[in-house]
Amino acid sequence: MTAGAESLTPAPLTPASMRRSRDVPALVERARDGDPRAVARLVTLVEDADPLLPEVARALARHAGQAHVLGLTGSPGVGKSTLTNELVRVYRASGLRVGVLAVDPSSPFTGGAILGDRVRMQDHATDAGVYIRSMSSRGHLGGLSAATPQAVRVLEGAGCDIVIIETVGVGQAEVEVASLADTTLVLLAPGMGDAIQAVKAGILEVADVFVVNKADRDGADATVRDIQGMLGLGERGPGQWRPQVVRAVAARGEGVDDVVAAIAKHRAWLSEHGQLQVRREHRAGVEVEQIALGTLRARIGSLRHGTALPALAARVAAGELDPYAAAADLLAGLAQP
Amino acid sequence: MTAGAESLTPAPLTPASMRRSRDVPALVERARDGDPRAVARLVTLVEDADPLLPEVARALARHAGQAHVLGLTGSPGVGKSTLTNELVRVYRASGLRVGVLAVDPSSPFTGGAILGDRVRMQDHATDAGVYIRSMSSRGHLGGLSAATPQAVRVLEGAGCDIVIIETVGVGQAEVEVASLADTTLVLLAPGMGDAIQAVKAGILEVADVFVVNKADRDGADATVRDIQGMLGLGERGPGQWRPQVVRAVAARGEGVDDVVAAIAKHRAWLSEHGQLQVRREHRAGVEVEQIALGTLRARIGSLRHGTALPALAARVAAGELDPYAAAADLLAGLAQP
Repeated sequence: MTAGAESLTPAPLTPASMRRSRDVPALVERARDGDPRAVARLVTLVEDADPLLPEVARALARHAGQAHVLGLTGSPGVGKSTLTNELVRVYRASGLRVGVLAVDPSSPFTGGAILGDRVRMQDHATDAGVYIRSMSSRGHLGGLSAATPQAVRVLEGAGCDIVIIETVGVGQAEVEVASLADTTLVLLAPGMGDAIQAVKAGILEVADVFVVNKADRDGADATVRDIQGMLGLGERGPGQWRPQVVRAVAARGEGVDDVVAAIAKHRAWLSEHGQLQVRREHRAGVEVEQIALGTLRARIGSLRHGTALPALAARVAAGELDPYAAAADLLAGLAQP
Repeated sequence: MTAGAESLTPAPLTPASMRRSRDVPALVERARDGDPRAVARLVTLVEDADPLLPEVARALARHAGQAHVLGLTGSPGVGKSTLTNELVRVYRASGLRVGVLAVDPSSPFTGGAILGDRVRMQDHATDAGVYIRSMSSRGHLGGLSAATPQAVRVLEGAGCDIVIIETVGVGQAEVEVASLADTTLVLLAPGMGDAIQAVKAGILEVADVFVVNKADRDGADATVRDIQGMLGLGERGPGQWRPQVVRAVAARGEGVDDVVAAIAKHRAWLSEHGQLQVRREHRAGVEVEQIALGTLRARIGSLRHGTALPALAARVAAGELDPYAAAADLLAGLAQP
């Protein structure tokens, strides 16, 4: 997550943005009332690292932890968007509000536009209880946008009961989405060699639910067997979750109820074992750390363009000062916000 | 350079290392007197991010800027090590002391050992005026060790007149080596498609001297023409250096004097135009910034394992505090060293 942290550091407040700051609590209220434009505006503020970002975060704080956050990952073509669509259908049928963050440039939800424009899934286009947002990856390695944690907060603040983060599986992405989610789903398809890849990428450690999609195809049994075999190799204590393996044919809606049941089972396990709290505190810690690091990078950047660093660098180049002493000097200057 | 900065942050001083600290000025004195074991010991302290590192830097500071630092880069197999060997021969023949830092796991100098053991080039094994050191890349993307700037300082402190940093060319590496060197040499060979690659990787902007090695092979003329053609496309003002293109057959020692002459010409140009100072101040600035960032990362890391971050994270997870306010709290705690 380090690479993208900088992009979450808001620019300094300007007179114009200070005027706009009066609107933030009102915007959050409108989002809670179900106004999709208010939700879209808040996510845009987050994506743009707007100077109002800390204020948005402040207004959203008390709504934290109200949604069950699902991470959904897997290789391209494995059926992530189809399954997401089906999950939205099932959850909406139970009257839950659902938010989707598609952090995947190849997602059909984005309609080819990867720069964060707001679009709706066709099936749910007229449903006010569903928010769908494609997030640009902002050049962030691993594909997961640095803005994603704050976007999750917006959707929680907007009253979503379920937030689905859909991200393309390229190894590191699974691990990252798992660090944001309460429940991580990894999608596989028969004959894609994904089971082996999953081991290599360390996905066995982060997946809470494996979904073998396209389970009507040849090789589905072998894929399920592979995963269960690999899961059997790892030792698990009595207090550890044993990842579920579920078959589905998302394109026909088959097995989706089983996926939802596995998610619910995991959620119940998390609560019973106090792990929901553990995961969320860990997640908040990573988030705070990333914001702090981004702020420090921005401060160092402004020193670079100011006079402190060039003056120190000239003394180091002249042999009057060693670089460690100069770095200590620089850090003393950073203490002031 | 960001990725590896952390590894340059020294561990806290321990009583044992405080005892050893008495030896640092003596060690630097011995290195200046030409004791190769003292030089090796200092580079090891640098590579290990030893707690004594700031003290080593302090003892070396006044010897800064005394060597002409050459960066030598190019694709594997292009003849970097052979040319380095020849450059050492020519400079030694003029009585200059030469240091070589091979930041290249594929370099024959390392004898296959990539973990920073000290070895000598065979041709110069008995020459006390030559130091050769392979540097591990410490997982640093781009191949250039984060410890390299400090290792250059050690070799300057040891009285080297010329320091050659040899690094494997993989795009980003050329740009990084250029940020450390007074003069950057890019090696190409006929028929390797390097000229095209050089354009893609932005090498045209950083190379001060192009060496077309293996110039006795078919295609050498075409390669020279390609480079000169590309150089001709870029506009250059009267105050800008026009990169030299030199032919060589390093394996037979041919053209090496021309390479040395091109380096000397560039060095003279740098001095005449005040650019040596500009480059070295820029280099010192990057170095100071990296050390400062590494220190901050280490401090945040220790907060993560302490109580400050977990306590803040728990409040964020509980919705009592927003992550930006928590990050500000965390940063206030960072101000103390």
